[in-house]
Amino acid sequence: MNAASSGPRAAHLDPDTVAQLRRIVGDSHVLLTDGDVEPYSRDATPLFRARPDAVVLPATTSEVSAILRLATERGIPVVPRGAGSNLAAATVAERGGIVMVLTRMTAIKEISADELLAVVEPGVTTAELADTAALQGLLYAPDPGSRTVATVGGNVAMCAGGLRGLKYGVTRNYVLGLEAVLPTGEVIRTGGRLWKDVAGYDLTRLLTGSEGTLAVITEVTVALLPMPAVARTGVAYFDSLSDAGRAVAGVIRDGLVPATLEFLDNRCVNAVEDFAHLGLDRQAGALLLFGDDGTPEAVERSLGIMAATCERVGARGVTMARDVAESEALLTARRCSLPALARLAPITLLEDATVPRPKIAEMVDRIEAISARHQVVCATFGHAGDGNLHPTIVFDPADGDVRHRAEAAFGEIFAAAMDLGGTITGEHGVGAAKRGYLQARLGADQMALLRRLKAAFDPAGILNPGKLGS
Amino acid sequence: MNAASSGPRAAHLDPDTVAQLRRIVGDSHVLLTDGDVEPYSRDATPLFRARPDAVVLPATTSEVSAILRLATERGIPVVPRGAGSNLAAATVAERGGIVMVLTRMTAIKEISADELLAVVEPGVTTAELADTAALQGLLYAPDPGSRTVATVGGNVAMCAGGLRGLKYGVTRNYVLGLEAVLPTGEVIRTGGRLWKDVAGYDLTRLLTGSEGTLAVITEVTVALLPMPAVARTGVAYFDSLSDAGRAVAGVIRDGLVPATLEFLDNRCVNAVEDFAHLGLDRQAGALLLFGDDGTPEAVERSLGIMAATCERVGARGVTMARDVAESEALLTARRCSLPALARLAPITLLEDATVPRPKIAEMVDRIEAISARHQVVCATFGHAGDGNLHPTIVFDPADGDVRHRAEAAFGEIFAAAMDLGGTITGEHGVGAAKRGYLQARLGADQMALLRRLKAAFDPAGILNPGKLGS
Repeated sequence: MNAASSGPRAAHLDPDTVAQLRRIVGDSHVLLTDGDVEPYSRDATPLFRARPDAVVLPATTSEVSAILRLATERGIPVVPRGAGSNLAAATVAERGGIVMVLTRMTAIKEISADELLAVVEPGVTTAELADTAALQGLLYAPDPGSRTVATVGGNVAMCAGGLRGLKYGVTRNYVLGLEAVLPTGEVIRTGGRLWKDVAGYDLTRLLTGSEGTLAVITEVTVALLPMPAVARTGVAYFDSLSDAGRAVAGVIRDGLVPATLEFLDNRCVNAVEDFAHLGLDRQAGALLLFGDDGTPEAVERSLGIMAATCERVGARGVTMARDVAESEALLTARRCSLPALARLAPITLLEDATVPRPKIAEMVDRIEAISARHQVVCATFGHAGDGNLHPTIVFDPADGDVRHRAEAAFGEIFAAAMDLGGTITGEHGVGAAKRGYLQARLGADQMALLRRLKAAFDPAGILNPGKLGS
Repeated sequence: MNAASSGPRAAHLDPDTVAQLRRIVGDSHVLLTDGDVEPYSRDATPLFRARPDAVVLPATTSEVSAILRLATERGIPVVPRGAGSNLAAATVAERGGIVMVLTRMTAIKEISADELLAVVEPGVTTAELADTAALQGLLYAPDPGSRTVATVGGNVAMCAGGLRGLKYGVTRNYVLGLEAVLPTGEVIRTGGRLWKDVAGYDLTRLLTGSEGTLAVITEVTVALLPMPAVARTGVAYFDSLSDAGRAVAGVIRDGLVPATLEFLDNRCVNAVEDFAHLGLDRQAGALLLFGDDGTPEAVERSLGIMAATCERVGARGVTMARDVAESEALLTARRCSLPALARLAPITLLEDATVPRPKIAEMVDRIEAISARHQVVCATFGHAGDGNLHPTIVFDPADGDVRHRAEAAFGEIFAAAMDLGGTITGEHGVGAAKRGYLQARLGADQMALLRRLKAAFDPAGILNPGKLGS
């Protein structure tokens, strides 16, 4: 968890810099006191915290540009962020300097049913974008768990995933164009309003998932889809995760790519049942939530096939939601996994090691063996459709060296994921939390290339220093 | 059409370099004579041609790496290519040096129905990949017109599009992972086998569409989909392109995102009818081909809605294919547009200016006005679903200054596309052909950034010099 050693560090901002920042955004949008700055000293990642020297909240692209120009001139670190709901410590200002918060830029500039797109400022929440699009019968498909608080700009910076990844893909698949400000202050526009546009390097996708290290995103154009007529969900219980894995494989073999294929292990099922009293099968080795959306006939067909496949591979029980309310109740089991687990102990470390879909059962076995060896409590849930697991270790930091045992366990879990052809992070990002594992995933040559790319965008190294290519 | 002035130029390779190349790939895979080199002096773009000093055909990643290391050491330009079917003069070796042809690397390493992916070497043709996947009931969705000859590596380098872009997206949406060799010889692996993977910058997408200027792709992992049960097509004739445009808008408003929405203007309809005698309506102002795939019920529903929408906005006639053979016959009208137009005159310049879908009719009007003003014959067909137009100017170079008039017309067509919120190239790429228009599209600041990115990959500037970021 050490920041990389090179690059700018700002112990404290000098009075002239503070005056300049106030001139750019107005006095009330430069926060300096401990109390004002405290909420921006951390994101949603436990155990990571650092006090920035100042928090600055610009309202326009030209304010963003002026701040960045100043920061580059004076070598001041700038960490851009939205709601700070990321789980990778990607927006913790480890070297002090400025946290630039984009939550004042909340305009939904356009929703076009004819062009199937929306143009928004980065501070709009994902849920607000989705809800506004829904009023026009349009779907914004990416649905990260943090959607009610997370911003679209943050989603793009982290390439957020969600529960619908198998059928719909992730944020990357929906970003059509960006306005972004380079660390040196230039404003560029990448992509645009088109699904097909190959003029120049694909900076739109390069900035997506760059974790605020290359540029600050000030406008996002995203693709929308026609809203599916219906969505429906079912749940199946299995004796083991291997059985659930065989059901998932069977569904894919049946030629389906459904919207929802989520699983919970036995420990998650019990935590959720303790928390929400949904009447889940506490004896089940695994719960598989399956669902799809589309026309009523297509959804009926899809759910029928999935239920039959679950029964064929030996499900202990299969229940289909009869209506929207029952579908929502079933989804609650999945959505409340994290809060349910968080009640078990003071600290909840949620990871997102990801493996090829057929390796899920093997990966969960390895996670259990690793957890047992390090004597940590780990529950696993996640996106069975795309192999995106959320092994979650809960512990009480008062319990001796448990934090180090948890970290050691995660190190082995990441190694196991890579050994099975997977990755250290499917959707949460690298940030400070997984920085130490990135070279094992990418190799030294690619890491060196990342640093050269970073320098091509950010010669002074001011943007989110110490993360990704820094 | 001048190459950019900086960077390496290789008049002739010295004997030692030739000997080294022979040592790396074997004598028979280094071509030097005029006759041997001639087929690699051009791609599918009319009017562009340049003789490379040598053509080298490596068979392995390590041979590619050794060639590139040598080229970087000695400052020799290297233009990587597959079949050379691109339409942007992206693989013409304007500065001589080496054309590196990847067509010996043709292994289909893996097709996985469980993981819904394929791993192939770059020289496999798109059609061979698609046909091999189809044997396992899997769809490789991108379908560029050149698919029977184009290679997967070339598709990735150009981010090839095709007829199914609206529903299925383009090549970018299917590339999961790449093995690529940097100009300095290092072999990197980007992405992998997962739909969700956010470890590091998205080099997979950055290399996709980079036109062979950043790295040489030596292995491609692509996503596959379950093969739709049925596909079906219909055709509607309209008095004007405006009417056809209203039909397309109506289809989207009906909540459909169909697989096929293609149009031909009157001149294309007549050229195709002269060529293929399909019984098309020669008086129609526009022909709209519509189609979809999926379950039989879904396709019946989708085509029913599209036919009704066409009739509602005043189609002159609507015909639905009754079976696969009739669907194929209708698709022939679209697929043979280019060969049909090519018969009209010795030179056929095919472009792919792209505009937002609602602007298609206005864009076609502007294309007609521009063509008339410059006294050139221009027919337009293309992908109505994603606004990707193919204005095609045919001429006889013996006809005075017609070539300059055609180029002037295209300059205005690109400007018109950008004026309507579109781009200079939707799917063909920039190459040498549209280099002169790129800065107008991207702006000077983004062009400067492209050059810095290029330098981060290719410090000696050897890879496809003069294109994109060079």
